[in-house]
Amino acid sequence: MTPRKVPPTTIQRLPLYLRCLVQASAMHMPVVNSVQIAEMAGTNAAQVRKDLSYLGEFGTRGIGYDVDSLITHLSKQLGLTEHRRVAIVGFGRLGSALQRYPGLEERGMKVVAIFDADSAKVGTAVKGVTVKSIDDLEEVVKREDVEIAIITVPGKYAQDVVDRLVASGVRAIMNFAPVHLHVPEGVEVRQADVAGELQILSFHLNLRRTSA
Amino acid sequence: MTPRKVPPTTIQRLPLYLRCLVQASAMHMPVVNSVQIAEMAGTNAAQVRKDLSYLGEFGTRGIGYDVDSLITHLSKQLGLTEHRRVAIVGFGRLGSALQRYPGLEERGMKVVAIFDADSAKVGTAVKGVTVKSIDDLEEVVKREDVEIAIITVPGKYAQDVVDRLVASGVRAIMNFAPVHLHVPEGVEVRQADVAGELQILSFHLNLRRTSA
Repeated sequence: MTPRKVPPTTIQRLPLYLRCLVQASAMHMPVVNSVQIAEMAGTNAAQVRKDLSYLGEFGTRGIGYDVDSLITHLSKQLGLTEHRRVAIVGFGRLGSALQRYPGLEERGMKVVAIFDADSAKVGTAVKGVTVKSIDDLEEVVKREDVEIAIITVPGKYAQDVVDRLVASGVRAIMNFAPVHLHVPEGVEVRQADVAGELQILSFHLNLRRTSA
Repeated sequence: MTPRKVPPTTIQRLPLYLRCLVQASAMHMPVVNSVQIAEMAGTNAAQVRKDLSYLGEFGTRGIGYDVDSLITHLSKQLGLTEHRRVAIVGFGRLGSALQRYPGLEERGMKVVAIFDADSAKVGTAVKGVTVKSIDDLEEVVKREDVEIAIITVPGKYAQDVVDRLVASGVRAIMNFAPVHLHVPEGVEVRQADVAGELQILSFHLNLRRTSA
């Protein structure tokens, strides 16, 4: 069964729905309706129904969605039925915060490799993962079968790191370095941009002042 | 002059354009065209022209945009002609990484207050800002005239912190806690969700495997 082409904005909301459903399951709710999901997700019920309809026929009109089966299905869609193997490249404060964040493992991501250029950090073990030298990137990425890489190196090193990751077979990259990365077709990049998010907030503050 | 109602997806891209223009300025380019901006921003030229058209009449057909005047205009639109006053609530690894990140100040954000619940951290000064007790949140937020708050406390404390910030007059919140926040009308929240971003990457990896 091939799902219909899912719009990017819907894909963006799927992880949020999954998180809400896991919360519902933790609260021992066997069934949720689109209004309840929308309330938890901060969106509206029509949007929820439309988004979930892309994934197939779920839910019973007037009753709702079976929480456990929808969790299973969404997890499968998101490729989370096994843990994804993740590398963190750059082990400063941010890289370190990310590795220790319990939400990653809970949501299907397993950090299997950590790299840093600082020889003082190489060889230390954190939560069972030993920090490797960035010089050994290719070898370790292949051996550990890394699927997703998180980049937290300084901006000027990011493109070089990404080129090496892509050459080693990595096809999914989350970039925290404040630079735009160039990747070949077939490689997916998500750009984290905290300063940009704050600027969007600033824009909204400005609008409010103007319209007040 | 009131700008036309700017669509949310355009607002999302404005900080990216601003970052590209600042890069162009650093490379001593007096003028850029939409193709060049699109290349730097990883989007397409028609999109750039459309997005910028919401802000008014800029650019000269066949020539391009004057870099410095477009920077000035975008900064004004984004409310960045003065620095925004930012508080970081929760000063663990992530909060600490954010405060030290030079990109915030470069892009118009000034951290003026830091809060933590850990009395061992309270009173220490980092980059000229002294960590305050979370108990003094209301008083310090008002005194320092905080406009934007960044939440990096554990999920179970986030809603309480946000309620107190909103009661103290904060109208813009960037949330790193992995919970959905409830705020009254007129308060803008941006949700950071690293695990969700990784799940989106996972979804794309899955699609590729399915279609291969």
